[in-house]
Amino acid sequence: MKTVLIIGAGKSATVLIDYLMETAKEKNRKVIIADASLEMAQKKTRGHTTARAAHLDIHDRELRQKLIQEADIIVSMLPAFLHPIVAKDCLTFGKHFFSASYESAALKEMRKEIEEKNLLFLNECGLDPGLDHMSAMQIIDREKAQGNSITLFKSYTGGLLAPESENNPWKYKFTWNPRNVILAGQGVSRFIRNGKLKFIPYHMLFRRTETIIFDKLGAYDGYPNRDSLSYRHIYGLDGIPTILRGTLRRSGFCKSWDVFVQLGITDDSFEMDVPEGFTMRMFINSFLPYHETKTVEAKLLELLPWVDEDILLKVRWTGILEHSPLTLTKGSPAQILQSILEMKWQLQSGDKDMIVMQHQFEMDTPKGRKSITSSLIHIGKDQQHTAMAKTVGLPLAIAADLFMDGKIDSRGLRLPIHRDIYAPVLDRLKEEGIIFTEIETKLD
Amino acid sequence: MKTVLIIGAGKSATVLIDYLMETAKEKNRKVIIADASLEMAQKKTRGHTTARAAHLDIHDRELRQKLIQEADIIVSMLPAFLHPIVAKDCLTFGKHFFSASYESAALKEMRKEIEEKNLLFLNECGLDPGLDHMSAMQIIDREKAQGNSITLFKSYTGGLLAPESENNPWKYKFTWNPRNVILAGQGVSRFIRNGKLKFIPYHMLFRRTETIIFDKLGAYDGYPNRDSLSYRHIYGLDGIPTILRGTLRRSGFCKSWDVFVQLGITDDSFEMDVPEGFTMRMFINSFLPYHETKTVEAKLLELLPWVDEDILLKVRWTGILEHSPLTLTKGSPAQILQSILEMKWQLQSGDKDMIVMQHQFEMDTPKGRKSITSSLIHIGKDQQHTAMAKTVGLPLAIAADLFMDGKIDSRGLRLPIHRDIYAPVLDRLKEEGIIFTEIETKLD
Repeated sequence: MKTVLIIGAGKSATVLIDYLMETAKEKNRKVIIADASLEMAQKKTRGHTTARAAHLDIHDRELRQKLIQEADIIVSMLPAFLHPIVAKDCLTFGKHFFSASYESAALKEMRKEIEEKNLLFLNECGLDPGLDHMSAMQIIDREKAQGNSITLFKSYTGGLLAPESENNPWKYKFTWNPRNVILAGQGVSRFIRNGKLKFIPYHMLFRRTETIIFDKLGAYDGYPNRDSLSYRHIYGLDGIPTILRGTLRRSGFCKSWDVFVQLGITDDSFEMDVPEGFTMRMFINSFLPYHETKTVEAKLLELLPWVDEDILLKVRWTGILEHSPLTLTKGSPAQILQSILEMKWQLQSGDKDMIVMQHQFEMDTPKGRKSITSSLIHIGKDQQHTAMAKTVGLPLAIAADLFMDGKIDSRGLRLPIHRDIYAPVLDRLKEEGIIFTEIETKLD
Repeated sequence: MKTVLIIGAGKSATVLIDYLMETAKEKNRKVIIADASLEMAQKKTRGHTTARAAHLDIHDRELRQKLIQEADIIVSMLPAFLHPIVAKDCLTFGKHFFSASYESAALKEMRKEIEEKNLLFLNECGLDPGLDHMSAMQIIDREKAQGNSITLFKSYTGGLLAPESENNPWKYKFTWNPRNVILAGQGVSRFIRNGKLKFIPYHMLFRRTETIIFDKLGAYDGYPNRDSLSYRHIYGLDGIPTILRGTLRRSGFCKSWDVFVQLGITDDSFEMDVPEGFTMRMFINSFLPYHETKTVEAKLLELLPWVDEDILLKVRWTGILEHSPLTLTKGSPAQILQSILEMKWQLQSGDKDMIVMQHQFEMDTPKGRKSITSSLIHIGKDQQHTAMAKTVGLPLAIAADLFMDGKIDSRGLRLPIHRDIYAPVLDRLKEEGIIFTEIETKLD
């Protein structure tokens, strides 16, 4: 009888928990759901007899290690910076470790010991990173096996609104962690195009977008995301002349978002401390030049002359030009901006979210050049059962289930880029309605 | 017989060492010059019988503490991050501590103990910070004593070229630490104008400049520097509606420098790792969009349409558009840019540098409103004996000398904003030819 310990029972863990409880029934497994809030954990068991709720303060070593020793595999849904604490215990007690987060430097340091103990530590097994790796690697491995040589790989993902729910000027609402949306793209984005290394600083990112088309949906803005260069090696594409991983927003979003970036109000590096009663309009004004008589709008248009009526409409719609007091007066500009947008970008009853992903390939084949476009469009059921929650939670849940069934042989510190992981996971995802559509075109 | 220990005998310490050796002769003092390089320290004694050279690895606690115990006061010319090591020892052995660096958080933590032991720990006593504090506070204290209420205070400093040595298109060369010039302005600049808080992100800084005029020199660009808001309290100007501290460059410098900022090549946050033989032109091209046929120049003008002939001339003059290999291929973009500019912005024989400083005040007086402009122009002797070296080293040397003479009564963790420090230091600086000129104007 296998036992899986799920640490973290927040909203983002619901799909994963449900899947592992469902499968536990038929497979005679036990599920322990541990959370800082016992009540939250209890609620998530939903009366399943296979599941047990447990209270866990993650910094309570004794309690944590006791729970970990009870389980065979541990799935961590904690914030990424807490993973190493759990992973260390997994090493100590010889338990397998699963997460949807980026493989951190702390995890990399454990690589040798993970291998020595013949454990599987699987990270980046959610949506992005996760499903993107798996669906891309399936094509890469298949085409390589056919003797084709990939010359271009671009991969874009977006967590957006279903077209029928695009009921605000931004055609955007928060469908996941708002903070990550506010900070998206910070740092320097790196990729390579036709053999030319390219670096884009954050303040240039939202104006250097590409248009990405989904046949059934229309146009989206794609912007490069973090360090695409490192994926050349990870994906086994070391000499590839073009590789780029990016993020999608609805067409027109990026040039409007760029207003906030240019003004500096997405900055998370310093604490503002503004007087009580400071208004949203004063907040934006504090990032505009001083003028004795000009309005905020006039100064904005002067500083950013490319702002047009459509962009100004979007900015105005957020409420940021209004004379109402800020709800948050201490915090970074990014935190204050988030507090403003959270009032406007909440999913409402009836709203459906949507995950879009597109991989673009070009390759040389023995029969000439060809391109492949592989696209995923997945629409959520309602504002509770989002496509985001499903596509983040299911890949990890399925990987854990397959592993407990002995259907994954990989051991070591792993991403889901190996065939023995991605192939069965993608098969199972297909059954769940998460399906990629491929279009192949002969290039001249 | 008093003993002063000077730790760090690099180029930036020369003026300070010379001054303290000269004064030691007449005042029967001893000077110990300690450096990681004994040879460098020995060279700096220049045969003075009052001075002794010592080898010191700053991380060798035993040796360090032995030297500190021999002295009455310690002057640290080490890089700022090493000050706390020395300061801690000074606390332990009850020695006074002097530096030209910003008062760090680590030093602030020692405040109580410094006071309890009745020691003087004087920081920010160089040029900027240093001379700027002293010359501003002299006016602030004087005007307040006359019952005047200061409503505006702006203060700008620049380490530049004397007009007769402005022999390149940028009218600029490195006269101090090149790295600080490359990174200048990074972070968010904060100030207040007419009661309105203002924040400028780095990527907006070099286009939101003000023109600052020196009667004898002409126009300079002034841009806000770091956190001016914190100086409201430090300068005793808590309710002041306008305060801004800034940096000066020759007119036209900033909009050209902005090309590098906009492209992202002043970024110091990540390591580039480009192939051997990567040229300067490839370096700048890696921050420009890809295009199959367009030249680097054409893409630059397209991305930054405000770049005019004059700006392009300055950029071209740096060599960065040339097909020659980089001398540095590993390092941050900022480090690579520095390596390019160091070939061009070196002081040559015959070149003279210049320090400019200008304080602007507006105030309400019982007789109506008035403004005061206080300006310093100080030109160096030659490329060895620079105005920069003199204005950084002398204030600290003079403060140390006055202190040993018992002419400074302040104790505790201090900046040179107190009358008993700045008044005698400024008097002595006047004798050394460092003189401010004040112009007072009645405002209507």
